[in-house]
Amino acid sequence: MDRQVSALPGDRRFFERNGPFPIQVLADCAGARIEAGGVEGADTPYVGIAPLQSAGPQEVSFLDNRRYAPLLEQTKAGVVILSPAFVDKLPKGTIGLVSQTPYLAWARVASLFHPLPAVEPGIHPTAVIGAGTVIDPTAQIGPFVVLGANVEIGAGTRIDAHAAIGDGVRIGARCRLGSHTCVSHALLGDRVTLLTGARIGQEGFGFAVGPDGFETVPQLGRVVLEDGVEVGANSTIDRGSSQDTVIGAGSRLDNLVQIGHNTRLGRCCIVVSQAGISGSTELGDFVTVAAQAGLIGHIRIGAKARIGAQCGVMSDVDAGADVIGSPAMPFREFFRNVAVLRRLAKKATQNGGGEA
Amino acid sequence: MDRQVSALPGDRRFFERNGPFPIQVLADCAGARIEAGGVEGADTPYVGIAPLQSAGPQEVSFLDNRRYAPLLEQTKAGVVILSPAFVDKLPKGTIGLVSQTPYLAWARVASLFHPLPAVEPGIHPTAVIGAGTVIDPTAQIGPFVVLGANVEIGAGTRIDAHAAIGDGVRIGARCRLGSHTCVSHALLGDRVTLLTGARIGQEGFGFAVGPDGFETVPQLGRVVLEDGVEVGANSTIDRGSSQDTVIGAGSRLDNLVQIGHNTRLGRCCIVVSQAGISGSTELGDFVTVAAQAGLIGHIRIGAKARIGAQCGVMSDVDAGADVIGSPAMPFREFFRNVAVLRRLAKKATQNGGGEA
Amino acid sequence: MDRQVSALPGDRRFFERNGPFPIQVLADCAGARIEAGGVEGADTPYVGIAPLQSAGPQEVSFLDNRRYAPLLEQTKAGVVILSPAFVDKLPKGTIGLVSQTPYLAWARVASLFHPLPAVEPGIHPTAVIGAGTVIDPTAQIGPFVVLGANVEIGAGTRIDAHAAIGDGVRIGARCRLGSHTCVSHALLGDRVTLLTGARIGQEGFGFAVGPDGFETVPQLGRVVLEDGVEVGANSTIDRGSSQDTVIGAGSRLDNLVQIGHNTRLGRCCIVVSQAGISGSTELGDFVTVAAQAGLIGHIRIGAKARIGAQCGVMSDVDAGADVIGSPAMPFREFFRNVAVLRRLAKKATQNGGGEA
Repeated sequence: MDRQVSALPGDRRFFERNGPFPIQVLADCAGARIEAGGVEGADTPYVGIAPLQSAGPQEVSFLDNRRYAPLLEQTKAGVVILSPAFVDKLPKGTIGLVSQTPYLAWARVASLFHPLPAVEPGIHPTAVIGAGTVIDPTAQIGPFVVLGANVEIGAGTRIDAHAAIGDGVRIGARCRLGSHTCVSHALLGDRVTLLTGARIGQEGFGFAVGPDGFETVPQLGRVVLEDGVEVGANSTIDRGSSQDTVIGAGSRLDNLVQIGHNTRLGRCCIVVSQAGISGSTELGDFVTVAAQAGLIGHIRIGAKARIGAQCGVMSDVDAGADVIGSPAMPFREFFRNVAVLRRLAKKATQNGGGEA
Repeated sequence: MDRQVSALPGDRRFFERNGPFPIQVLADCAGARIEAGGVEGADTPYVGIAPLQSAGPQEVSFLDNRRYAPLLEQTKAGVVILSPAFVDKLPKGTIGLVSQTPYLAWARVASLFHPLPAVEPGIHPTAVIGAGTVIDPTAQIGPFVVLGANVEIGAGTRIDAHAAIGDGVRIGARCRLGSHTCVSHALLGDRVTLLTGARIGQEGFGFAVGPDGFETVPQLGRVVLEDGVEVGANSTIDRGSSQDTVIGAGSRLDNLVQIGHNTRLGRCCIVVSQAGISGSTELGDFVTVAAQAGLIGHIRIGAKARIGAQCGVMSDVDAGADVIGSPAMPFREFFRNVAVLRRLAKKATQNGGGEA
Repeated sequence: MDRQVSALPGDRRFFERNGPFPIQVLADCAGARIEAGGVEGADTPYVGIAPLQSAGPQEVSFLDNRRYAPLLEQTKAGVVILSPAFVDKLPKGTIGLVSQTPYLAWARVASLFHPLPAVEPGIHPTAVIGAGTVIDPTAQIGPFVVLGANVEIGAGTRIDAHAAIGDGVRIGARCRLGSHTCVSHALLGDRVTLLTGARIGQEGFGFAVGPDGFETVPQLGRVVLEDGVEVGANSTIDRGSSQDTVIGAGSRLDNLVQIGHNTRLGRCCIVVSQAGISGSTELGDFVTVAAQAGLIGHIRIGAKARIGAQCGVMSDVDAGADVIGSPAMPFREFFRNVAVLRRLAKKATQNGGGEA
């Protein structure tokens, strides 16, 4: 197959493209200082972004990682976004956009060139819409979307093909719900993003042992996704059993993440792919849960704690702590244990394995 | 956003609400003894359920966990479901509903106030239905559902929006298939519940090494979900390769669970979120597999065994055993190992790290 | 429920059935030598496949695993596919189809009797198709499928109900996209298979820390699935951030697998269920990643390396290496560590636990 039809990043088949922009617009967007050296770039119309290796004189590139500093010296990019530490290494003919937060500056400039597709207000004629549902006229509802009764959809919100939204759900402004998302028993704030196949509000895992097997305990809470929350593809967030499951403002969940009933995340938490948080556990603000980590139910994780990949957390974690391992322990202790065990095992083997 | 519009549990936007009910109806439903003390509650119309902290004199609450006993003494709930051990602590003015199985009693009373939405018989006009398919007239088929040819749908079964059911699938009575479920090559008993996005019956992971890469081994078995099975959101159950993949009656699978081809679960097994069971493994009755555990293929797990969270099971497990760790070992041994290693590592560090 | 309506494998409700076939056709298909002994089978019309235990004189069976050799001596199968090592044990009256690769031979013969359902060219009238989209007349597009603008669908490709394909996506020939698949920002080669609910091309997990929380870094790459790639149910493959996410030709991904942005897999890699590979990691050809393993980002895995189940890989892995454990280590070292720790723990316990 032919992969080279269009240059990356920003293949025109898939991405919008704005511009060109002069240097001052880029600097304003990036919140960056212009380090022009002797370069006359004020009138150059910059047309796009590209990696250091392939960028040309009309393109903008980016350096964040010290590892790639050698590429800077050889780049032909017209503009490079970078931190003050690398300004010295700018080649002649390349303008620097100098920022203390170059990755953030890059995110903004890249978004300037390649904005999200605009919302196209309107309701696809195939959508099925329940009684009492109110859709802001600036919202976009895609093909085969099903909205239950008494749903509210805010301004500028886009709901893609096949989404299924249950009765009474409230969705704020400027949300993006991807194809095949399901939402029920939930209240979504503004600027909430759900990627394809995310499941929000289904009943949690609750049952009692009866004489003839398990009997379901009704799950009578809701899911609250606060402003700016993002949920990855095929992730699942169960509604509360009697209170709410809450994802705090600005939190980001990756793909295939599981959130149990009554769980509460604070503001700006990060939950990486395939991690799972069991029921009624509470996370403070700015907690990071790395990939494939698992947290049991009914525990508390303090603000800014970091839970390592594949970590198994069975008890409370202090604010600011770094833990890893299963069961979870401080990072330092975990790697010390690994090293000591390796040494002991080597020794035991050298001694013939009979003694340790 | 305003989360306080409706009281929890049972936000009227999302949940049905029955009642009020007198105390005798609640007691009969719960199978509980009325401990009225001096309270005159026979004529009170109880209107709903609520937590101990917020319940009022016309509401029913619940105590199961010793941790919350202090809340009992201060509750204003009209009725509390509890075990005999807590009857002494009932405040004046509160009636007890005393049960040896208070959580089960609670499940039943909560379901009395908040029943599942009734099935509304009928086929949505957008549904696509194949030749020879027979749908019981009391079943409900939602918008954009696709039923293949020769499908059978039993009485009182509800199939929600966008579900896709393949040719020849048989679904029993009083089943609930959530939005976006896919079922093929499968036989479902009665009272089977699939939450949103569950995938049942797709081909298993089977291939042989050929001269030009992998070649698919046809997957010619089925999936059998026996009566009362529940499967969580976005979980996947592969059909057998030559025999069946079987989930035993009453078993409950949580979200994002993977079941490989030819796997057999006994009755009333529990598989918690993100756990995976590889092909051809067999579980006895009442086995519990905790979150994120993984079982390799072709092993046997005895009845009532309990597999801990994140456990990696590489060989047979005896009936009634409790295992955890990766590789799996008895609970006691696992935690002993953890403690001993911690001690050895501390000692090694104190000794300068050079010796162990 | 009645599970016995149809014999397995190949329940006629769910599977096509071809035949009967004479022995020579089977041998040609299998690429196998006929070991007829004194049997006169040239004219027998073989009608199907069955396990050794249940196969009759007109059926074909299969032996691959030494464990099942005793079943061979008692089988009533007309034909058994097997390796030269077992020919001696063929019972009288059973013809052997002898192959150095009996599992592959079996795959081919089983596919001969039970081919994939034929593609039925045509576009379901409910499908929604964007401007500029080109569908080969031999392709099949199912009900409620949504194809964006400027999509290309190749010859003999089948797209099942509810699939959602984004603008500009290119899909090659003889692909099978299951129900509820989502594909965007992606180029698919020929013979690509996606099982139900697979999500391809959604934005990766990328954001920068801004003054008011996280800000999304635009994800401007694509997903490339090369020829013959298969992706399991509910798996997720994020598009690249600035380059492509690439799955090499012939690779097979199981269910609930996560592939991060910019990740590159070589040819014929295997990724088993619930494994996750983080962003920008590169795998050589023929790498195996077992179930629930996790790889961090920005590392390289050499060709033919094997990553064990639940393994946590934090650094590069050499070509051909076998690793397991979290953190990953050579198989031998892992199991030595396990054994040594067990011994040390036992000893510590015998000594009263006070000394290690």
